[in-house]
Amino acid sequence: MGRVTVRRPIVKLSPSGRVRRPDALAAEEPLELRVGGKALAVTMRTPGHDVELAHGFLLTEGVIGDREDVATARYCDSVDDSGKNTYNVLDLALAPGVPEPDTGVERNFYTTSSCGVCGKAALDAVKLKTRFSPASDPLRVDPAVLSTLPDALREAQRVFESTGGLHAAGLFRADGTALVVREDVGRHNAVDKVMGWALLQGLVPLTGTVLLVSGRASFELVQKAAMAGVPMLAAVSAPSSLAVELAAESGMTLVGFLRGEQMNVYSGIERLADYPVSA
Amino acid sequence: MGRVTVRRPIVKLSPSGRVRRPDALAAEEPLELRVGGKALAVTMRTPGHDVELAHGFLLTEGVIGDREDVATARYCDSVDDSGKNTYNVLDLALAPGVPEPDTGVERNFYTTSSCGVCGKAALDAVKLKTRFSPASDPLRVDPAVLSTLPDALREAQRVFESTGGLHAAGLFRADGTALVVREDVGRHNAVDKVMGWALLQGLVPLTGTVLLVSGRASFELVQKAAMAGVPMLAAVSAPSSLAVELAAESGMTLVGFLRGEQMNVYSGIERLADYPVSA
Repeated sequence: MGRVTVRRPIVKLSPSGRVRRPDALAAEEPLELRVGGKALAVTMRTPGHDVELAHGFLLTEGVIGDREDVATARYCDSVDDSGKNTYNVLDLALAPGVPEPDTGVERNFYTTSSCGVCGKAALDAVKLKTRFSPASDPLRVDPAVLSTLPDALREAQRVFESTGGLHAAGLFRADGTALVVREDVGRHNAVDKVMGWALLQGLVPLTGTVLLVSGRASFELVQKAAMAGVPMLAAVSAPSSLAVELAAESGMTLVGFLRGEQMNVYSGIERLADYPVSA
Repeated sequence: MGRVTVRRPIVKLSPSGRVRRPDALAAEEPLELRVGGKALAVTMRTPGHDVELAHGFLLTEGVIGDREDVATARYCDSVDDSGKNTYNVLDLALAPGVPEPDTGVERNFYTTSSCGVCGKAALDAVKLKTRFSPASDPLRVDPAVLSTLPDALREAQRVFESTGGLHAAGLFRADGTALVVREDVGRHNAVDKVMGWALLQGLVPLTGTVLLVSGRASFELVQKAAMAGVPMLAAVSAPSSLAVELAAESGMTLVGFLRGEQMNVYSGIERLADYPVSA
């Protein structure tokens, strides 16, 4: 439980020869999420911050909107061959009055629209589920501040330097202050851990914040940001077409290829527009 | 349908100013896979090679083992607001005698073992499902050849240079010959497209081949390679702990951080060991 890295012997090959040595790997194990004893999802994640992950997952799937919506969260008695708890099954009880989610969340998500299964259906599904709108968020961020965030994210990543195998997500205020950074082998899990942390802190909706992710921005990540009311999502790498469409529809600012003082702005330029261009 | 990139206006910010210009984005749309009319999975993918994707998904989930196991594959009449087919719902009919998969594949996958949900359960599930064993594959690859594959993969990626947003997977012979390269916003989809292509070509089990992926190697990617009988998986970035465990248990060679003439070998070094170390 909670093993973020695993050491293992490897062989390094290079033109100068072969070296056998121990190496640190990013830990990956399945986590089964249950609600009221019923299995909802299994995700391959890096152990640690599982309760946050579960809260973030339920928030960004539209099942809960507040920390009060969850009554209890506990690990089930899932034991391995030697009788030890695996800490890989987490059961959440919802508060009275909170409707239990359907299993098969994913399928429902994309097929609620009249158009069958298409990008528009996915956009519509998010619109239906969103409790918070980033559209009216008055956040303004100085591009010079934004350009410092990838380094701040990297510095906060304790594990990345040793394994190179973890995605990171970080939440920042407009002045560049880091609120939280989480890592995982799955980028969606890193974001869920951040969102769950914020929910448990009573910070959702996340007005006035920037979510930074270490890799690419997919539809799923924009969806998670929208579901938590985040007005600005920045990614170190490229966004997808549907990520940009959802950000634009949600009134969210989406920044990609944030590298040094360069960045691409795909939607919501107004939140970066009040600052003079530095010389 | 089949739009691999989408053009969209963006704003490029840098210290030298703001430039508004069109940019190419990697296309992302949902694809619903049905078997016998029943929805099995929805994946966010880059349109194109959908039939291959479906075959690869069913192969690597253990539903089929041969191209003869699929009788027909066709797009359903899923239409958008203007009445046009979205080409986002694909229905496959299995051949007589091929058992239909359960829905909820994912949950079944990790909970079939006695140990509940844990890494070992995931490993056991793959062991139960694998039809082909890479363990006895006599493949030998010269590390000098292996080191040329990332460049070959990149050259074959028509889209990456313009969007930076697509994962790639490529299948190679021991002498470095490329068999196929596929791209997708989802790395698992890129691999499924490759596996589906191979199945449709009658090349499964993929003895004597190397699968190269542009990013990291997760458990899921090693699983897919194992299910198709691939004896060597190479990744440009880091593998996870469970990816290494599965590769070792399957008798597969796993190479990570394949960059220039340097690489880390996590399992199956014997397939790289018959060559002299170059000076």
